[in-house]
Amino acid sequence: MAKARARLDSLAKPPGSLGRLEDIVVTLAGISREMFYNASKRCVIIMASDNGVVEEGVAAAPQAVTYAQTLNFTKGITGISVLAKQFNADLIIVDIGVNAEISHPLIKNRKIRKATWNIAQSVAMTRDEAERAILVGIETAIETVKEGYTLLGAGEMGIGNTTTSAAVLSALTGLPAQRAAGKGAGLKEEAYQHKIEVIKTALHNNRPDPADPIDVLAKVGGFDIAAMVGIYIGAAFMRVPVVIDGFISMVAALTAYRLNSTVKDYMFASHASFEQGFAYAAQALGLEPYLNLNMRLGEGSGCPLMFAMIDAACAVMRNMSTFEQAAIGDEYLNELKDGDNFTVGG
Amino acid sequence: MAKARARLDSLAKPPGSLGRLEDIVVTLAGISREMFYNASKRCVIIMASDNGVVEEGVAAAPQAVTYAQTLNFTKGITGISVLAKQFNADLIIVDIGVNAEISHPLIKNRKIRKATWNIAQSVAMTRDEAERAILVGIETAIETVKEGYTLLGAGEMGIGNTTTSAAVLSALTGLPAQRAAGKGAGLKEEAYQHKIEVIKTALHNNRPDPADPIDVLAKVGGFDIAAMVGIYIGAAFMRVPVVIDGFISMVAALTAYRLNSTVKDYMFASHASFEQGFAYAAQALGLEPYLNLNMRLGEGSGCPLMFAMIDAACAVMRNMSTFEQAAIGDEYLNELKDGDNFTVGG
Repeated sequence: MAKARARLDSLAKPPGSLGRLEDIVVTLAGISREMFYNASKRCVIIMASDNGVVEEGVAAAPQAVTYAQTLNFTKGITGISVLAKQFNADLIIVDIGVNAEISHPLIKNRKIRKATWNIAQSVAMTRDEAERAILVGIETAIETVKEGYTLLGAGEMGIGNTTTSAAVLSALTGLPAQRAAGKGAGLKEEAYQHKIEVIKTALHNNRPDPADPIDVLAKVGGFDIAAMVGIYIGAAFMRVPVVIDGFISMVAALTAYRLNSTVKDYMFASHASFEQGFAYAAQALGLEPYLNLNMRLGEGSGCPLMFAMIDAACAVMRNMSTFEQAAIGDEYLNELKDGDNFTVGG
Repeated sequence: MAKARARLDSLAKPPGSLGRLEDIVVTLAGISREMFYNASKRCVIIMASDNGVVEEGVAAAPQAVTYAQTLNFTKGITGISVLAKQFNADLIIVDIGVNAEISHPLIKNRKIRKATWNIAQSVAMTRDEAERAILVGIETAIETVKEGYTLLGAGEMGIGNTTTSAAVLSALTGLPAQRAAGKGAGLKEEAYQHKIEVIKTALHNNRPDPADPIDVLAKVGGFDIAAMVGIYIGAAFMRVPVVIDGFISMVAALTAYRLNSTVKDYMFASHASFEQGFAYAAQALGLEPYLNLNMRLGEGSGCPLMFAMIDAACAVMRNMSTFEQAAIGDEYLNELKDGDNFTVGG
């Protein structure tokens, strides 16, 4: 990382003036031990799953949309499909618990069960199921890296998963339900108030242990969140950078961090989701998003946009000239070296 | 714009869930009267000029760097060159006042004069020169659009131009010099305090009229800033979107807005520059940046990154399926239409 920073400082620009693009380069160097990272083969892994809690009326869309969109991901017509194609990323679609029979060559069948249980009535899943779901994420990340991917994104599809994510965030951090929960894909005010009550009930009945992230996932989470936790762990294990999308993806990232803080070194936050609770989760994890787009789609849709920023950072490192090559003289260099105010990256 | 919004709402996603990407689409539709904007041919126009005020010691780099970098832009090795190439943008390099003889096939010679006068000692330029510099920007924008470019960016190169920009911002808005001025490309603390004093002196001696933006440009601005004002006016005149880069570019955008508020409808703010004063200028103009990168390089370097976001927005509009195509049923649609909380784009 020090070598990467030194090279960045030798490029024909005021040191640090490319800000967080330079930080990206340094982080990639730390992850890979390579000066020039190649992020050209990348993918977004979408964990698709259903949530029993939708029977409480906490989601604007019916459960069948999870199944419909999971199929649509294979057709290139969803939001993430379009954005992934635009920025040369592949989609890896994993059925970890969709409430339907799916047999499709482009959808990996790693189903734990058809939907979790309703967290307002019971735990979401057994601890064993939570561990298996995490393992699916770890294994998927490892498989993709072995296939040659050097940059991953963590996305999801699952009607009801802003409710489970808010419950997980609240359980892990103590943030009150009314601050953790947002309006998801478009809840009306009355339904939103009900969603908050459902989360409170789930937390009160299940009493998840904040010191035990797997307990939290099992009691009030979802298969999708647990599997995304696994993606982050698997990416770090394989020393590959991984991009966080929106609220659900960020809550999963925070959960992974609570399991093993090392994973943070491999993460990039992409965009600041519009969903309430995102900012708190990002702050709890200590990551600052790069994009300010008010998005709240999910599906991993922020990841390809961040891939473009990572491309930009890698291009700067690879293709900019040094001061020497740029024929900018020693006078300037000495001025700069004497500077007392270079806060790199800000 | 209403038709564009209606189509966006028919796409298979919760209405408004792609946030500001959707706003970009709607803005482009308003600019072009086209549903599907084609932004594939784009360029960053770099206005290069020198500033007499550097003799006060307000810049970290010597004046010769303006000339060196202006030549380097033609070689593809500067920060903006690399980023432009990464996102398929061309560079249009204009010498509007570099303090050197330049004769180069890739640099447009529109030199007003070799550097402005020192604003701490006199006006920067005559009113006639300010008007001619603005006209160069207008003409350059018109020429590029006539060459087929459908998306422009406004960049600059000019040692000392954070000083002149801060003076213009302070003159236009009344913001105190110590809040308008930042440390530019890397000033030491003592030199920074001196820079503030120089700006105060320039404003005190020249008494620019805040109600007369051309007077402000002539008295405390620069040829580069004035020419960028012209780029924004020319882009709006030709009904083509234009992307703002960092501090200097944003101050020029604010100045153009003060001349004719219509120009704002054609502008996109790209990134939130690290330079102090940027946030105030953006707020005064009423534009919110899309990227949070702590950059402070200038050269138009934020523009290509924003081009990528515009590409993403256009791809969504062009390639996402509608609800009907996505086979997502009426139940969901009706739920969504009944929603009371869709604040589009936030």
